[in-house]
Amino acid sequence: MSNPTLSRAQFRDKLALYLVTDHREDTANLLDVVQQALMGGVTTVQLRRKHDDGAQLVELGRAIRKLTREYGALYIVNDRVDIALLTDADGVHVGQSDISCTDVRKLVGDTMVIGVSTCTVEEAHIAVAAGADYLGVGSVFPTSSKPDADMCGIDGLRAIADCVDVPIVGIGGIQQDNVGQVLGAGADGIAVVSAIMGATDVSRASADLLAMVRER
Amino acid sequence: MSNPTLSRAQFRDKLALYLVTDHREDTANLLDVVQQALMGGVTTVQLRRKHDDGAQLVELGRAIRKLTREYGALYIVNDRVDIALLTDADGVHVGQSDISCTDVRKLVGDTMVIGVSTCTVEEAHIAVAAGADYLGVGSVFPTSSKPDADMCGIDGLRAIADCVDVPIVGIGGIQQDNVGQVLGAGADGIAVVSAIMGATDVSRASADLLAMVRER
Ligand code: NI
Repeated sequence: MSNPTLSRAQFRDKLALYLVTDHREDTANLLDVVQQALMGGVTTVQLRRKHDDGAQLVELGRAIRKLTREYGALYIVNDRVDIALLTDADGVHVGQSDISCTDVRKLVGDTMVIGVSTCTVEEAHIAVAAGADYLGVGSVFPTSSKPDADMCGIDGLRAIADCVDVPIVGIGGIQQDNVGQVLGAGADGIAVVSAIMGATDVSRASADLLAMVRER
Repeated sequence: MSNPTLSRAQFRDKLALYLVTDHREDTANLLDVVQQALMGGVTTVQLRRKHDDGAQLVELGRAIRKLTREYGALYIVNDRVDIALLTDADGVHVGQSDISCTDVRKLVGDTMVIGVSTCTVEEAHIAVAAGADYLGVGSVFPTSSKPDADMCGIDGLRAIADCVDVPIVGIGGIQQDNVGQVLGAGADGIAVVSAIMGATDVSRASADLLAMVRER
């Protein structure tokens, strides 16, 4: 992996409970929820806001950078490498229609980790060959926060986990009652949006999910 | 200005007829129209596609980079500094809600020019103080391609032109019948979307507009 300050094992460990932000308009509230999630034990935060302008993304990114540093979590930016560079992110996450992993590497060199969303074994092989440091694999289950996402299911996740050596984070419809299946299929961590962002008690929901990953 | 390969006068000259792309879905057709516009004499092309994913932007940007080089035109990327860096752009253009000019400069250093959209004298002063190499000033006239844009009008354009030394490109609703007013108010060049992208004869429309700027 690329980030020189973490060992492979430490990096894998930091992917245990991976929070992806939602698109709520109230950004003060968003940051408040992110902080509660970090207090509960979230180990990585991904800034993913498809509709925000650059100035807003820089502002949110700098705030999340500060919070994640305080709690010892990784901070990853979805898609926008410029925002990742400006806000001193630990990494960039790209989907299949975003800037390619190879192109992201040209911009960030070895200073950041790169994650790639994959849904098939073929996509996973291509991402790893292109230098991906981890894979986001999904959707494992149907999800309301990304209803048009391709589904790979538990079997698809297992096929990819059997195939590649980089850490794998399952994503898509993951809740407390199905975390066991995701880990059982070979995921190193779980990525969630609504299971944390939509929880009544955000810290508690985060702590419960983290405990499930750690106890596997 | 920042780009080391152009003199100040050459740079100002390259802003004479500044084409901003539209959002049409047929990107092969988009590139065809851009080429016709370059054949007609367009001196700068800005890639502005607010809804495209990163992979698409990289592909379009590389194609426009190739075309603009062939015709000796500048190639500028709207908003996304990462795409500008990856596609070897001559510059980045940012609006008031995009990444700030100061932050763009951190990423591009002196290798690219930076343009900033401004609508008031105050915004213009701030942009120039932050190191903007040129200003896009508008909307000068009401425009269908950006109906919610702030209006500065001809008087607002003149007020900014009287105040700053960097080159100014008027934008917003500019057509053949009002180019004279825009130049008369102090603009160095004109930026258009539909007057070229929507023309029946794109090369002819471009040549006619360029002649009007050159003959002033
Ligand atoms: Ni002044």
